[in-house]
Amino acid sequence: MRILVLHGPNLNLLGTREPEVYGRDTLEDINDSLRQLGAELGAHLDFLQSNHEGVLIDRIHHARDEQVAGILINPGGLTHTSIALRDAVSAVGIPTVEVHLSNIHAREAFRSHSFLAPVAIGQVCGFGADGYLLALRGLLTRLKS
Amino acid sequence: MRILVLHGPNLNLLGTREPEVYGRDTLEDINDSLRQLGAELGAHLDFLQSNHEGVLIDRIHHARDEQVAGILINPGGLTHTSIALRDAVSAVGIPTVEVHLSNIHAREAFRSHSFLAPVAIGQVCGFGADGYLLALRGLLTRLKS
Amino acid sequence: MRILVLHGPNLNLLGTREPEVYGRDTLEDINDSLRQLGAELGAHLDFLQSNHEGVLIDRIHHARDEQVAGILINPGGLTHTSIALRDAVSAVGIPTVEVHLSNIHAREAFRSHSFLAPVAIGQVCGFGADGYLLALRGLLTRLKS
Amino acid sequence: MRILVLHGPNLNLLGTREPEVYGRDTLEDINDSLRQLGAELGAHLDFLQSNHEGVLIDRIHHARDEQVAGILINPGGLTHTSIALRDAVSAVGIPTVEVHLSNIHAREAFRSHSFLAPVAIGQVCGFGADGYLLALRGLLTRLKS
Amino acid sequence: MRILVLHGPNLNLLGTREPEVYGRDTLEDINDSLRQLGAELGAHLDFLQSNHEGVLIDRIHHARDEQVAGILINPGGLTHTSIALRDAVSAVGIPTVEVHLSNIHAREAFRSHSFLAPVAIGQVCGFGADGYLLALRGLLTRLKS
Amino acid sequence: MRILVLHGPNLNLLGTREPEVYGRDTLEDINDSLRQLGAELGAHLDFLQSNHEGVLIDRIHHARDEQVAGILINPGGLTHTSIALRDAVSAVGIPTVEVHLSNIHAREAFRSHSFLAPVAIGQVCGFGADGYLLALRGLLTRLKS
Amino acid sequence: MRILVLHGPNLNLLGTREPEVYGRDTLEDINDSLRQLGAELGAHLDFLQSNHEGVLIDRIHHARDEQVAGILINPGGLTHTSIALRDAVSAVGIPTVEVHLSNIHAREAFRSHSFLAPVAIGQVCGFGADGYLLALRGLLTRLKS
Amino acid sequence: MRILVLHGPNLNLLGTREPEVYGRDTLEDINDSLRQLGAELGAHLDFLQSNHEGVLIDRIHHARDEQVAGILINPGGLTHTSIALRDAVSAVGIPTVEVHLSNIHAREAFRSHSFLAPVAIGQVCGFGADGYLLALRGLLTRLKS
Amino acid sequence: MRILVLHGPNLNLLGTREPEVYGRDTLEDINDSLRQLGAELGAHLDFLQSNHEGVLIDRIHHARDEQVAGILINPGGLTHTSIALRDAVSAVGIPTVEVHLSNIHAREAFRSHSFLAPVAIGQVCGFGADGYLLALRGLLTRLKS
Amino acid sequence: MRILVLHGPNLNLLGTREPEVYGRDTLEDINDSLRQLGAELGAHLDFLQSNHEGVLIDRIHHARDEQVAGILINPGGLTHTSIALRDAVSAVGIPTVEVHLSNIHAREAFRSHSFLAPVAIGQVCGFGADGYLLALRGLLTRLKS
Amino acid sequence: MRILVLHGPNLNLLGTREPEVYGRDTLEDINDSLRQLGAELGAHLDFLQSNHEGVLIDRIHHARDEQVAGILINPGGLTHTSIALRDAVSAVGIPTVEVHLSNIHAREAFRSHSFLAPVAIGQVCGFGADGYLLALRGLLTRLKS
Amino acid sequence: MRILVLHGPNLNLLGTREPEVYGRDTLEDINDSLRQLGAELGAHLDFLQSNHEGVLIDRIHHARDEQVAGILINPGGLTHTSIALRDAVSAVGIPTVEVHLSNIHAREAFRSHSFLAPVAIGQVCGFGADGYLLALRGLLTRLKS
Repeated sequence: MRILVLHGPNLNLLGTREPEVYGRDTLEDINDSLRQLGAELGAHLDFLQSNHEGVLIDRIHHARDEQVAGILINPGGLTHTSIALRDAVSAVGIPTVEVHLSNIHAREAFRSHSFLAPVAIGQVCGFGADGYLLALRGLLTRLKS
Repeated sequence: MRILVLHGPNLNLLGTREPEVYGRDTLEDINDSLRQLGAELGAHLDFLQSNHEGVLIDRIHHARDEQVAGILINPGGLTHTSIALRDAVSAVGIPTVEVHLSNIHAREAFRSHSFLAPVAIGQVCGFGADGYLLALRGLLTRLKS
Repeated sequence: MRILVLHGPNLNLLGTREPEVYGRDTLEDINDSLRQLGAELGAHLDFLQSNHEGVLIDRIHHARDEQVAGILINPGGLTHTSIALRDAVSAVGIPTVEVHLSNIHAREAFRSHSFLAPVAIGQVCGFGADGYLLALRGLLTRLKS
Repeated sequence: MRILVLHGPNLNLLGTREPEVYGRDTLEDINDSLRQLGAELGAHLDFLQSNHEGVLIDRIHHARDEQVAGILINPGGLTHTSIALRDAVSAVGIPTVEVHLSNIHAREAFRSHSFLAPVAIGQVCGFGADGYLLALRGLLTRLKS
Repeated sequence: MRILVLHGPNLNLLGTREPEVYGRDTLEDINDSLRQLGAELGAHLDFLQSNHEGVLIDRIHHARDEQVAGILINPGGLTHTSIALRDAVSAVGIPTVEVHLSNIHAREAFRSHSFLAPVAIGQVCGFGADGYLLALRGLLTRLKS
Repeated sequence: MRILVLHGPNLNLLGTREPEVYGRDTLEDINDSLRQLGAELGAHLDFLQSNHEGVLIDRIHHARDEQVAGILINPGGLTHTSIALRDAVSAVGIPTVEVHLSNIHAREAFRSHSFLAPVAIGQVCGFGADGYLLALRGLLTRLKS
Repeated sequence: MRILVLHGPNLNLLGTREPEVYGRDTLEDINDSLRQLGAELGAHLDFLQSNHEGVLIDRIHHARDEQVAGILINPGGLTHTSIALRDAVSAVGIPTVEVHLSNIHAREAFRSHSFLAPVAIGQVCGFGADGYLLALRGLLTRLKS
Repeated sequence: MRILVLHGPNLNLLGTREPEVYGRDTLEDINDSLRQLGAELGAHLDFLQSNHEGVLIDRIHHARDEQVAGILINPGGLTHTSIALRDAVSAVGIPTVEVHLSNIHAREAFRSHSFLAPVAIGQVCGFGADGYLLALRGLLTRLKS
Repeated sequence: MRILVLHGPNLNLLGTREPEVYGRDTLEDINDSLRQLGAELGAHLDFLQSNHEGVLIDRIHHARDEQVAGILINPGGLTHTSIALRDAVSAVGIPTVEVHLSNIHAREAFRSHSFLAPVAIGQVCGFGADGYLLALRGLLTRLKS
Repeated sequence: MRILVLHGPNLNLLGTREPEVYGRDTLEDINDSLRQLGAELGAHLDFLQSNHEGVLIDRIHHARDEQVAGILINPGGLTHTSIALRDAVSAVGIPTVEVHLSNIHAREAFRSHSFLAPVAIGQVCGFGADGYLLALRGLLTRLKS
Repeated sequence: MRILVLHGPNLNLLGTREPEVYGRDTLEDINDSLRQLGAELGAHLDFLQSNHEGVLIDRIHHARDEQVAGILINPGGLTHTSIALRDAVSAVGIPTVEVHLSNIHAREAFRSHSFLAPVAIGQVCGFGADGYLLALRGLLTRLKS
Repeated sequence: MRILVLHGPNLNLLGTREPEVYGRDTLEDINDSLRQLGAELGAHLDFLQSNHEGVLIDRIHHARDEQVAGILINPGGLTHTSIALRDAVSAVGIPTVEVHLSNIHAREAFRSHSFLAPVAIGQVCGFGADGYLLALRGLLTRLKS
């Protein structure tokens, strides 16, 4: 079972960027943990981080051809502004889970609205790097059921 | 490590109520799964479901005296309307995770705002009964770190 | 045919409370009229007044086990604030009619929105105590059709 | 006792228009039922349907000269847009009841606001053709009290 | 194939009214062009201009009896205010296209919202008199498919 | 110099309708006073009252052919709802003054917004029947300057 | 009969300030015209222009001691921002008329709301310097009735 | 003279809950101070704290039978959400003062609106435990005048 | 201990202005009562009333040089409109209490928002002239603690 | 005459993506139809689809150098979010027509607002793939006039 | 070349007021720096600080008579509330630059809107005392071009 | 001291695009002036213009590795829409100044809000090409202090 893990803008800075908000794990640390959990749960994971909305959308389109079974995505700041990203997820029809490191409901008001969430299976936020692992578990359980 | 699991209004009807939205698991099924996962992860769980805001608040207050380490709560419809519940969680200072069975961002507009979320660690929504298990994992990981 | 009649917060004061707004009939007067009309139309009525949201919700849940065919409810101030009450009505799936003594559209702006109405069959407001009788007729006609 | 029954725009199509929303009774069926109930309750009814706001207003003005005791009106789409109609009802000072076939609170957001309701005695909605009968009863009871 | 072309309030002034906004073609010019294009494409067109909302609604109702296959309508100022007109279009179930001479999105804010558009097939705006021809083509293509 | 005086919906009831709001002068009284003042100031006045938006618009269109130099209009409830009326005034390009008997800023919030006012020369409100005379003076002064 | 004429901020610049908006009459021209009309109609006028909200309020308070019968005020930019000015007018209980040179409904959106208007007799706007004369006539007629 | 002192949700935690916001006095400390001041000023005080909206409403209703002369209430989080509580105060017609420990205007935006305040005599906020004493003095002065 | 008492616009009219809203005490009566209570509680009070925002701000600035320990202010209509006044209070850093004679939450909607309150210790409203005494007590208690 | 046809994000999926919303034509089908119609009408068409906002903007800039006479654009999800795209169209000054496959007024509320439309000639929506042909006709007619 | 430098309410406290927000330079320090830079760049500067809106407006009016070529203004709290100040700047037609010490976009929401900015050349904010120097440079460059 | 100068979408068109809004300087002219001023003030400047949000974000990230001391950015249309860009600036922690050629407060309402400004040092707008020089001065002064 192939899973695509997408990290949106600025997540490449993880571990160095505002650690009091986003924690000290680097993106590579998170990907390693995910890869390991995926292996345990029988899933192969592909990863992509990009600061380009278009690159993320291209990758989501490509996923359909690759028989990707599910998508795990932290859209970063695009969460709140990108209808094009939402449409991409909606168009390919691949079950998708949205994850945020921080508790988006405890920050600026504009961060509590997600354009993506209504077309996703669900959303996990506030658990830092662990949130990715929870989201992967949730996604895989759903895909197997 | 003691964990308090709180279910808000109407969750007692689970498994019979609008199954296309909330799934077919009963509340007892969910509690059993949680109890089992808690045992695996070294946590003892107490459960309470109530349709009374006041009963939920009283229980949260009591948790402080019982040395409860964390709270897992699905506030149901109170999520969007109860500032008193939010204040209770904020007042006792016990780390709390909010969980919703359905994807609250894909339903009526009034369901996407949570008064509780800003004072919680994080929020998990859209994974049905599995969301409780993800939330418990997330809570325990946070408590152990 | 069993009908459950629910009166929400402050309706126990009827006949004594702001009579220029709510009229001079007591709640018992209203219940007597309803009981009599119910008997004429072949329905048995149960009554409950409570100032507790939770008690009303519990009673609605219980109605399902009692084979209640329809609910007549004046949610009082909860009309405009309780999503939990709305969810209870929606969850049990029992046809429900909402009634208000006063014309809620001719009062403070916050009284013109009802969280319950969208999941009810319909709404009757502005006819004072007579509105209950109209609502009961409307409910029974719908149940028999 | 004379009662004027007014049907606003598009109600002439009743029975053929979106029956899943408005039911299968024609306007003539409704008028017949009303006429019969009026006769039972000692009232003579006059009827007018018009798709013209101005015709409805003219008719309301004329009602004052005819000693009309009460008005029963379903303003259709004008409910939400016509201040002129509201002013007509307010100006003639004839007790008026507003009725809607569908549950306006369960449809598009713009249908839940009525310009007319604040100057009416009350509002009945959601009971289909039966709502007219309920509204007539409510109006007559009020006029006789 | 019969097509009904409806022009709303003030469109009779076309060619003389604010030509910098609406162009110099008269309504008769537009109707002539439409008639000619209709003939080419195998459609017979009927025309009505009225400044009366009620007349437009009456005409839409009548269209059903006449076996009108499609409606082309420029509702003028009623676009933004008439729910009754929307309901008429929705009620008769005849495929309808909305057209505006000016680019309504480049004018006062209140002109960018249309009550009619959500129940129409589509909307064409900003092309002046040519917009009617485009709209007719679009309507006929849809009707033939 | 010809002046067209237009009275919108419900103004035919003047003198009998809510006199505490609108005063005791009848429409004929107002027209007489206007006619007399017009004569003094060298203007011939034509009058129309209608409860039909369409009739008012037709009359405004016709005014252009009659060489009407100015329009005095109390649009009644259409003030706040009719974009078609605004467009008619804007289209014919005849200088227009808007007048209201009552102080629209001291009543319901929805009465303080006028769709017509931005395309009129100016607005006079709150002076009862005298407001018409003020408005006529203002209009004539403007037309002569 | 004494009348107080108040001119708010920036009106001292009249005749030189944005003449395309406010006209070419100076404030002294306007005061002269008012004085002359006042004399004709049997009223003595006092004038004050100030750019200071406090000076205007002090003057309004003083008017009560002077047996001022009515106030004519153009509050300038304070119209839209000063609740203190509104309270002054409301407190002294002297009938007041609000006048604006320009058509405030045809300018920036923030100019269409007046804090003062709801406690005034009425409002005249859009007639340039002539508006003062209309307003004085309206005020005196009201005071004499 | 009997006074009822009501403490809403979470106030039982006082002195332990977020002391930087609410101070270090316990509810018992506050009640003691109030009892002592009441004795000085000739009033007997009854106290109730509850986390249940319904219990607070029941108690307010009961106060009427007990000849309670005034109510002192800190509704906690219900201040901003409970229309039922407002209606209870309004219905019994007992003069009521609203008090808040913290300055509700210096916190989250949702805390600055009170549903209760418009039907109370007045509101005291921001003085911590001393605010209760101020409120009691204010209430008693009003009751004796 | 020196206390500065500031009265904003229109408060000089107290006792004569809308007594049904603001009571019959004059400002001098209130100042006398305050002076006497201040003497009892060991405080010397200075008073200023002004209708000029600038004068109030100047006085607040001056207070810092005079070793004023606290400020008691009723900003009148400036409460809802003056950010400059708020900034003055915030800038001098002198503890300040806001008082209103009327219950600002029971009046026009624009009166319920205070720009000053968030930088004050607290707010007292609705107790008429007595509110000043309560506010002074509250201020002195806070200053002594 | 050169025309640039731009397709925004996700339009490459056309024919496979949510066919009930967007139809079954592929983007290549649409381009073929356009090319053919262009040839008939004497225009040469260039095509670009991109999921990257920046690529679309670059292409628009380039169009100026290529002597492109007109642009036909379906901005997809960028319609509602991209001010940069709007600025690009506005900056190059090339006449542009906006087209949407679906009726954007009949979908989620956020889809009815277009940042681009106010700087375009006009907008065509709801006609599926045919809408492109209509838009091309409209554009070419405008360019030739 | 004469330049008028205006400082609004509370800026006289500079250097002592909330230095973490506004910095430690006094107003005299700022004026000295400005005077020196003005001399370098060939401009003579006049200064005025006032807490009175009216004094600032009077000064702006006077500037026209003095042949002032440009105005540099920090309106303090009046930025967000004074339409009269905006009108003064607009009326005299002297090029004006608005400056703020703090970054008004990083503070309370109400500070990000300026009534003055739309009629100014531009705005500089967030650079503390240096912002005045930047603004002066910008103003002089513009005046010389 | 290295400074990164970033120009967002459409700024490459400078000098040719809507010169009445943006002036006649080309981007190269602006860069030359900046380079020269930087040299005078002891700073080395790097430049990048891109129409791609992602490219701008990548460049900001890279700046941290290059020991860039400060960023000067005109985000163009992204100012009002890109949370990802804001997060990039916030994440790298490099002092940043925002500059706009036009006075964004004097244009469409959507241009007055900046997502970036709250995380920048400050903002300069309205000075055309000179604004860049002012912003550079402001940035360098801040970096040296």
